[in-house]
Amino acid sequence: MENIRHRYSCEVAFSDTDASGWVHFSKILTYAERAEHDFLASAGVAVFDRGKGGWPRVKISCEYKKPLEYPDQIEVVLGLDHIGGTSLCWKFEILKNGGELAARGEMVTVKVDHAGKVTPLSDEERNILEGTG
Amino acid sequence: MENIRHRYSCEVAFSDTDASGWVHFSKILTYAERAEHDFLASAGVAVFDRGKGGWPRVKISCEYKKPLEYPDQIEVVLGLDHIGGTSLCWKFEILKNGGELAARGEMVTVKVDHAGKVTPLSDEERNILEGTG
Amino acid sequence: MENIRHRYSCEVAFSDTDASGWVHFSKILTYAERAEHDFLASAGVAVFDRGKGGWPRVKISCEYKKPLEYPDQIEVVLGLDHIGGTSLCWKFEILKNGGELAARGEMVTVKVDHAGKVTPLSDEERNILEGTG
Amino acid sequence: MENIRHRYSCEVAFSDTDASGWVHFSKILTYAERAEHDFLASAGVAVFDRGKGGWPRVKISCEYKKPLEYPDQIEVVLGLDHIGGTSLCWKFEILKNGGELAARGEMVTVKVDHAGKVTPLSDEERNILEGTG
Repeated sequence: MENIRHRYSCEVAFSDTDASGWVHFSKILTYAERAEHDFLASAGVAVFDRGKGGWPRVKISCEYKKPLEYPDQIEVVLGLDHIGGTSLCWKFEILKNGGELAARGEMVTVKVDHAGKVTPLSDEERNILEGTG
Repeated sequence: MENIRHRYSCEVAFSDTDASGWVHFSKILTYAERAEHDFLASAGVAVFDRGKGGWPRVKISCEYKKPLEYPDQIEVVLGLDHIGGTSLCWKFEILKNGGELAARGEMVTVKVDHAGKVTPLSDEERNILEGTG
Repeated sequence: MENIRHRYSCEVAFSDTDASGWVHFSKILTYAERAEHDFLASAGVAVFDRGKGGWPRVKISCEYKKPLEYPDQIEVVLGLDHIGGTSLCWKFEILKNGGELAARGEMVTVKVDHAGKVTPLSDEERNILEGTG
Repeated sequence: MENIRHRYSCEVAFSDTDASGWVHFSKILTYAERAEHDFLASAGVAVFDRGKGGWPRVKISCEYKKPLEYPDQIEVVLGLDHIGGTSLCWKFEILKNGGELAARGEMVTVKVDHAGKVTPLSDEERNILEGTG
């Protein structure tokens, strides 16, 4: 992965699992979203302001390598792969209990305003994201 | 239950289950909410309008009698138990595969405006709800 | 999309939405899973048997084209794109209120036994899936 | 609340919210469950073992006092109110950003074996829970 990295830790909740005994595939993607939100917040970029917009996903892909179960410890390794005019491309790896790769993928988010309209990154956002990148 | 009844049917989704093999208790409550929304919509009462408010729950209780699993067929039997000045009290029973009682409970919802402030039912809402009641 | 198609309809639940006002991206993927399960069940292939295995996802990708909101009507158009030795590749389109493309993607599922071990499709499963394909 | 207390902290995830802008009522209950699991695990009581049973809820009630939103910090104050032959009664308070009461409720869990059958607490479990109680 690229040289910018953010690490986010959490724990599998029992309610994230399904009847297979493993974490449901859709919940694994929410771990990546939480890591992205944690990164943006820690960098000083507004994640979501009611009535002011946010960063919805327009594309996502994920490969599931190893199942997760309750109560695994999760670490998400997140990298900002590309800063576009109105979008960000993130790569993520989800590690299980301190090591094994459980999943990896990409997500493209776009900046939208209060009405959900795609809108350019502000200079401030770009500076912050390039700076941390 | 009281004499007003609404019946709502749905199916357990695999993503509603947890590692016990059964439907997670929190998801069972969403079946009751879906039944309430279905009832309001069918009666002509606005369920939720972005920027215009809705009917959040202020109290809920539920007894779980029989576990549900994928792919059970669900029937929610919903009754409007009480119409208050700003609130509604609902009773619900959740039936499994056409008969067995899986859960039963109550929920109290309040009407809120666009700012989340509790607000009286409109005359129109009252007429509709008393009419169907 | 390929010539085999299955259509699955459902409705956005309020609990599928997030604070942006739109359906959360992870929930949209569960609509695709529900369509796949509905297809398999209708074709006579076991979706999930506790202690007997199922069809976990090993890869997923999705492009989000148009946001969904409560109470949109959803139609999932599902196609079985490829039948492998131990895996199935599905394509899906998610349509909003009878027409507009909301999302489209792919998911690869593998057959696993009761212990979660990847295992070949049975002849019966292959016959059914090729027959419907 | 009674004299035994466990405190569990977490953060509202964006995926816990709904289109009202606030956390969905059903997700608030999962915070209480996570606190209970955290307490049991820290006390040395098995929360869930695949094929060995767990502690499903048979009754839950909750009053919602103050809405939660992303990215509120949550603290769950959990108390073990009663130890029965096969059941535990928990009380919980959910605090918002270090103070305000967001919700409070009770949940009754029962011990079940691998087959989902209600079963008495073991002496070891009772000793641990009375000891911490």
